[in-house]
Amino acid sequence: MSSSDGKIVSKDTPDIEGCKDLDRNFLDVKHTTLSERAALKESARCLKCADAPCQNYYGAAKAILSDNPLGLTCGMVCPTSDLCVGGCNLYASEEGPINIGGLQQFAVEIFKAMRIPAVRDPRMNLQTLPDVYRSKIALVGCGAASISCATFLARLGYTDLTIFEKCDFLGGLSSAEIPQYRLPYDAVNFEIELMKDLEVNIIPNKPLTTEENGITLKSLMDEGYKAIFLGIGLPNPNIDPIFKDLTVNHGFYTSKNFLPIVSKASKAGMCACKSTLPTLSGNVIVLGAGDTAMDCATSAIRCGAKKVFVVFRKGFNQMRAVPEEVDVAIEERCEFLPFCSPKKVTTRDNKIISLELVRTEQDDNGDWIEDEDQIVKLKCSYIISAFGSTLNEEPVIKAMEPLKFDKYGYPIVDKITMASSLPNVFCGGDLAKVATTTVESVNDGKTAAWHIHRYIQGTDSIPLTPQLPKFFTAIDKVDVSIEVCGMKFPNPFGLASAPPATSSPMIRRSFETGWGFVVTKTYCLDKDVITNISPRMARGTTSGHLFGPGQGSFLNIELISEKSTEYWLRSIKELKQDFPDRIIIASIMCSYNEADWTELAKLSEEAGADALELNLSCPHGMGEKGMGLACGQKADLVLGICKWVRAAIKIPFFAKMTPNITNIVDIARAAKEGGADGVTATNTVSGIMGIRHDSTAWPSVGKGKKTTYGGVSGNAIRPIALRAVSAIAKALPGYPILATGGIDSADAAMQFLYAGASVLQVCSAIQNQDFTLIDDYVTGLQALLYLKSLGLEGWDGQSPPTPKHQKGKAIQVKDLIGSHLPPFGEYRKQRDKITQDYFKNVDILSPDFEPQEVRPAKEPKTSVPRLVDVRGLALDKITDFKHLDPREPAVAIIDDVSAC
Amino acid sequence: MSSSDGKIVSKDTPDIEGCKDLDRNFLDVKHTTLSERAALKESARCLKCADAPCQNYYGAAKAILSDNPLGLTCGMVCPTSDLCVGGCNLYASEEGPINIGGLQQFAVEIFKAMRIPAVRDPRMNLQTLPDVYRSKIALVGCGAASISCATFLARLGYTDLTIFEKCDFLGGLSSAEIPQYRLPYDAVNFEIELMKDLEVNIIPNKPLTTEENGITLKSLMDEGYKAIFLGIGLPNPNIDPIFKDLTVNHGFYTSKNFLPIVSKASKAGMCACKSTLPTLSGNVIVLGAGDTAMDCATSAIRCGAKKVFVVFRKGFNQMRAVPEEVDVAIEERCEFLPFCSPKKVTTRDNKIISLELVRTEQDDNGDWIEDEDQIVKLKCSYIISAFGSTLNEEPVIKAMEPLKFDKYGYPIVDKITMASSLPNVFCGGDLAKVATTTVESVNDGKTAAWHIHRYIQGTDSIPLTPQLPKFFTAIDKVDVSIEVCGMKFPNPFGLASAPPATSSPMIRRSFETGWGFVVTKTYCLDKDVITNISPRMARGTTSGHLFGPGQGSFLNIELISEKSTEYWLRSIKELKQDFPDRIIIASIMCSYNEADWTELAKLSEEAGADALELNLSCPHGMGEKGMGLACGQKADLVLGICKWVRAAIKIPFFAKMTPNITNIVDIARAAKEGGADGVTATNTVSGIMGIRHDSTAWPSVGKGKKTTYGGVSGNAIRPIALRAVSAIAKALPGYPILATGGIDSADAAMQFLYAGASVLQVCSAIQNQDFTLIDDYVTGLQALLYLKSLGLEGWDGQSPPTPKHQKGKAIQVKDLIGSHLPPFGEYRKQRDKITQDYFKNVDILSPDFEPQEVRPAKEPKTSVPRLVDVRGLALDKITDFKHLDPREPAVAIIDDVSAC
Repeated sequence: MSSSDGKIVSKDTPDIEGCKDLDRNFLDVKHTTLSERAALKESARCLKCADAPCQNYYGAAKAILSDNPLGLTCGMVCPTSDLCVGGCNLYASEEGPINIGGLQQFAVEIFKAMRIPAVRDPRMNLQTLPDVYRSKIALVGCGAASISCATFLARLGYTDLTIFEKCDFLGGLSSAEIPQYRLPYDAVNFEIELMKDLEVNIIPNKPLTTEENGITLKSLMDEGYKAIFLGIGLPNPNIDPIFKDLTVNHGFYTSKNFLPIVSKASKAGMCACKSTLPTLSGNVIVLGAGDTAMDCATSAIRCGAKKVFVVFRKGFNQMRAVPEEVDVAIEERCEFLPFCSPKKVTTRDNKIISLELVRTEQDDNGDWIEDEDQIVKLKCSYIISAFGSTLNEEPVIKAMEPLKFDKYGYPIVDKITMASSLPNVFCGGDLAKVATTTVESVNDGKTAAWHIHRYIQGTDSIPLTPQLPKFFTAIDKVDVSIEVCGMKFPNPFGLASAPPATSSPMIRRSFETGWGFVVTKTYCLDKDVITNISPRMARGTTSGHLFGPGQGSFLNIELISEKSTEYWLRSIKELKQDFPDRIIIASIMCSYNEADWTELAKLSEEAGADALELNLSCPHGMGEKGMGLACGQKADLVLGICKWVRAAIKIPFFAKMTPNITNIVDIARAAKEGGADGVTATNTVSGIMGIRHDSTAWPSVGKGKKTTYGGVSGNAIRPIALRAVSAIAKALPGYPILATGGIDSADAAMQFLYAGASVLQVCSAIQNQDFTLIDDYVTGLQALLYLKSLGLEGWDGQSPPTPKHQKGKAIQVKDLIGSHLPPFGEYRKQRDKITQDYFKNVDILSPDFEPQEVRPAKEPKTSVPRLVDVRGLALDKITDFKHLDPREPAVAIIDDVSAC
Repeated sequence: MSSSDGKIVSKDTPDIEGCKDLDRNFLDVKHTTLSERAALKESARCLKCADAPCQNYYGAAKAILSDNPLGLTCGMVCPTSDLCVGGCNLYASEEGPINIGGLQQFAVEIFKAMRIPAVRDPRMNLQTLPDVYRSKIALVGCGAASISCATFLARLGYTDLTIFEKCDFLGGLSSAEIPQYRLPYDAVNFEIELMKDLEVNIIPNKPLTTEENGITLKSLMDEGYKAIFLGIGLPNPNIDPIFKDLTVNHGFYTSKNFLPIVSKASKAGMCACKSTLPTLSGNVIVLGAGDTAMDCATSAIRCGAKKVFVVFRKGFNQMRAVPEEVDVAIEERCEFLPFCSPKKVTTRDNKIISLELVRTEQDDNGDWIEDEDQIVKLKCSYIISAFGSTLNEEPVIKAMEPLKFDKYGYPIVDKITMASSLPNVFCGGDLAKVATTTVESVNDGKTAAWHIHRYIQGTDSIPLTPQLPKFFTAIDKVDVSIEVCGMKFPNPFGLASAPPATSSPMIRRSFETGWGFVVTKTYCLDKDVITNISPRMARGTTSGHLFGPGQGSFLNIELISEKSTEYWLRSIKELKQDFPDRIIIASIMCSYNEADWTELAKLSEEAGADALELNLSCPHGMGEKGMGLACGQKADLVLGICKWVRAAIKIPFFAKMTPNITNIVDIARAAKEGGADGVTATNTVSGIMGIRHDSTAWPSVGKGKKTTYGGVSGNAIRPIALRAVSAIAKALPGYPILATGGIDSADAAMQFLYAGASVLQVCSAIQNQDFTLIDDYVTGLQALLYLKSLGLEGWDGQSPPTPKHQKGKAIQVKDLIGSHLPPFGEYRKQRDKITQDYFKNVDILSPDFEPQEVRPAKEPKTSVPRLVDVRGLALDKITDFKHLDPREPAVAIIDDVSAC
């Protein structure tokens, strides 16, 4: 339609509002992309209700990649609003669900930057596996489904795996069709490298076809492949017959030929070729309302389109594209034309000039109707058809003989096993018509891997339910055991003598989840037994109005165990029998008399406790009975009790210190002098958590709403506990310290180890979450120790240096023009213009845009430190004020590039 | 178009996907609506960079209503994404900007529930104002602009204000046109009541018209009105000529006649009438792309429309409606038809059956073109035209004579003063053609109020820049002064001896912002003067990875002041001269010898300090010099120092206690015995904030990266400080205590008062934000005290009882069907169905949906307590453990109605 066809009705919009000017700008556009700061904020919102097993970066990446070898790709491109995010328990809250995709992307990208290769489960010995594990297995097509399938087969122990790929690049649709600004080649390449770490062989330029240079099912079987996985996707576009005579030269594309040439010209590192972007201009019509249509629309903008119309047959309510994709198209100012179906293309001089559409409507029966009388004409220079994909290439179909196909022309697939009509041929990904997303393709490959395994090993010998090996690296081989007083702790994390260690079944559960040791809830002789009051716990107010896992403190007025001496002695015996490799430390308390302490210490030793902890520091209640804190504040009493216990037993024992004291070192010295093998530092800090507006505190007991001072635990007291541990460690070098007080992560554990701790007791963090924390702590500690051996420059533990240009953010104009521009108002427009000009002229395939190298892997420069190697490392830097030199002041410098 | 017109091309969608079934469901749909839990979470994200003056609910409401008497309405309906939220400094962060509208709504709704009337500035005495303040002023139209104008005129002291409203209900467009699910009548009524609290007179059913029963400018002037404000809006719809013969009976509405009848039938309490909703059905076409079009579309759904098509002339990129409104229409599954202009209506039996549209397109010049050849037909039963508003009613226009009008037919208005062509007539709101939102109409009224004031008082006597009085209530009259040791503190909040009190100019600024007292940074005799090291401050790690105002702790290794004795003595003198009503407490420290303490105490007394604080507790550095903590841990030294100082001076003095001690009460007793007038409890807690992965701590000084134990302050130590204060108060009844340690709000202040504190010192909270906190603390404390006098049932301080049915959330099905349904999967559909059925049959104007009563106001049941009345109220409830009765256990009960 030219302007002469109609009458001008309005001149009030002088500017033509076309799409955003993003010509050649393929920078990340994902709203989900997170900086480290934002990732920490976001993860702190998580309620940890399920599937939040890890908080350390490596542990998170390991958990993700264990389940999903394409966890980075899926974090970036999967429609999380339909999947995990839609199921988040915070979905209905005002602050909204967790950005799970973004966190997944963040964790795996951090791990990627570590450049640590994948290995098989360290407990697996390939040499001892039967010959059948060396069977030849072929995978056809190097896309998500095959990468997943090959990875899991390799993890299962198969060693002769070959992927055949028709293209000269790898990654399938992830590389060819998903645009760089949603999924950089970088990410895809990393996942392929992790697969290659497990020695999967890849042969590119090898299509499945009966034509020359191709492979067929038959040829593969002839070459001795025992099992074959087909993951070739759907290679052919659905095209409306009205376009049958049109070619790229006319200005007609399909998603299947448009997106791959865009990818090749915008994904640095994807292939050796230096291809150029298609040059679009003027109006571009994209047909379709699926995710691929949105990718075509936003890619067209980057190829020069001034206006993009997304035209589709149904209404907005029936769009197939996920909200994440539609939102990008809206933001980049695509126009939408619903209820239109293409009918006729007009060309002039062999170039498309317009498209005629007819109106569609849904009638009262729900049927969709086209009305040939209602014609809409749309002027355009280019049409991109994105009406979905199919399989209709004869040489490819013939190469799959003798597979059986369904009436639509797709291989018949068993949805449970992903087996085809042949028992040794499996299918996955788009070809199998189950998956509609990358993560579902990954699942196809995973399912197929298990059933290929069953097929090869014999279905009788392998259960139907998959039990697939996890993701491993050298980090998982790091030894975190430590010997203290002759006791071998498998890892340094244990339960403090506190509510999580209240009963034998709870201790049992902690051992089952992997805790290295337990200090029992304190018990006493039956004559001293107490009754607890209720309520006796308050949530912390020290970190604001937080509920749930994030809260920084607790207060309790719980006394010692209400259970009998006999209960605890029997429990210790049973637990030690069932978990001989774990350490059980019995926490005991008596009033100040030799007979009682002697009796209870001896009974506990006889029950099989590895060691004792003497509770000399309960800050509430027990003191009134002449127990607990009443003893622990006085050095002479501590000395006396320790001497009695030393005389009574041979096993090691530890005195639990109170922080509610002028000088904790005096008490520790007394314990040492009394013969204690070490100390526990520290018990809770005496306090009152808060007072309500009716002037009552919580816990508030009975009708009188009375309270008493309780013990504050958790992160709020970590500075106090770190001081106590380091002060004792400096004063009594090498003296064993069981640290406790705000240990809520591998990171906090390292701090206590540096401060001189031997092992680490946890309570509040478990109250905040549950026993499964132990996985996170152990993996996190292994990662921190392993990273020390790599000596990565600028890293702080698992945190990489903060990049100046953060993914998902605007580029720094200072780098382009040498001076600053504020980020608001008119300046913002100038910044946009500078960025636009930059991309118009830059070579977007140049080394500046090369993906980060992920291989060769980083090699350890030193041996991996053991826990004893890091213990006390901070002590020589903690000194008196007079040794801090005022002549060496630090000066703050503002980094103005980061600022603007 | 009937189905026989076209061919069926698809039968794959058996269900007709129409709009959501929201028939007669006018529940709140705003995503911004916040529960108290969510409001606290959201406000905790705020960086407090600007315009975040208040954290207590009343203080926040007061700040909002001071600037904007329609703050509740604006929080609910203004396009915050274009306004405040778009300007939020967190806008560019991954977690997004603050939900400012939602927080504004929340704070004002809490205040509304308090039922406390507005008053004029308590310092204003109406009786002493000149007669000119009793001039008659008329306001025409009771909408946003007039309500704002009348409120500010009343606050300025005018007492004869009359609003004339043509309808039988009040609120203007807010009541008539903005739907209940976005702006309940409740909110509008509340703001009108606040205006009526200031004795503004309202006459309903009184239109501006030359017709019978009307008023005109001339009639008002004749009646003696000195000034007139016109805020009548734009009463008439823009209608396309093709609709000129159509009426409601045909199925044709405009926004101007559709929305008001919807409002009357859905807004309980708006008018006495019991009208019923228009009954729509089938397809409804809404014409237009502005906010009103969206309101028509979503209202149509609630009146029975099965499908709603929003049809507009331009594209999505040019829609005028704000994103908030478009999103609601998308969520409720309206369909959108861009690039269409209505041309012809077809009726059958006097009922609309379809609408013909022509296609519009923007040509290369930006002109909009209609192509008559491209026709789209849309079957429909109803058409609602929402093409904007105008003024074209002759009797109304004539009633404004002799005003001058512009070429478009609107009154000529001075945009600076809102004056019309007559000096005594002012305009605002839609009529003045400046405002496009409610908040802009409010601003028109506010501007006009000031210039009416200038007109009446004489422009020479009143400055051009408005200085408008704030919002006040009885809360602002509450006395929070307190007398301690003969000193009269105007309020109990002061700076602790800490970095915020580092210099005289800083103390000056604190007094200017309203702090009641200051304890200076500790100074010493020049011979003892020290040099601080750098860095010396660490951010807290006790509440996770938080930066900014939310952090729960700090650690410092700053010593005392580096400034000379002379500097401090001179500063005290000058400050006391300039701020005679404030209390200055000089903090001093000497080594342990009588001469020094005597000298420095005397010098400080002579300089004019109201009192002294003896620093006996600096936890780092000074101890090495035999000062600070080294003295404060030993009762005999404290006793000695206090005796020396007592002998030296007459003014009161306080000993500052360390918490790093076994029994703080022993030291307090020693101070009392030594003659101290009270104690300060407590100084910082000794600790080490954290250790990094290179095993260095922060602060890390010099090349050696050394550190020393520092003082932890902030919320993390509040439980310890509360314990210290209450323990001293219980042991030494009535002994003055200056409390410090985590006081970060009026709420925390009350806790310390309950625990026995006399006045309150603040440091960390100021470091987190700035001196302006004082407004929040004082207003908050006033509110807490005043609310005690009201005795509101179920409230905890300023927190009302949590409603079972929270606004913005689905209704509780348990209430409807007597049993539970889970909120997910198939059950969700059942829940939706139950809700739908409920609304189909219920009387939505019944008392169940009546707005919450806001008047009559709550009257105090008791006198408002003074600070001395609440001091120590918690002490009798803090007891020994043995007085907590285990026979009175609390039992947890799950409220399963709230759960599902």
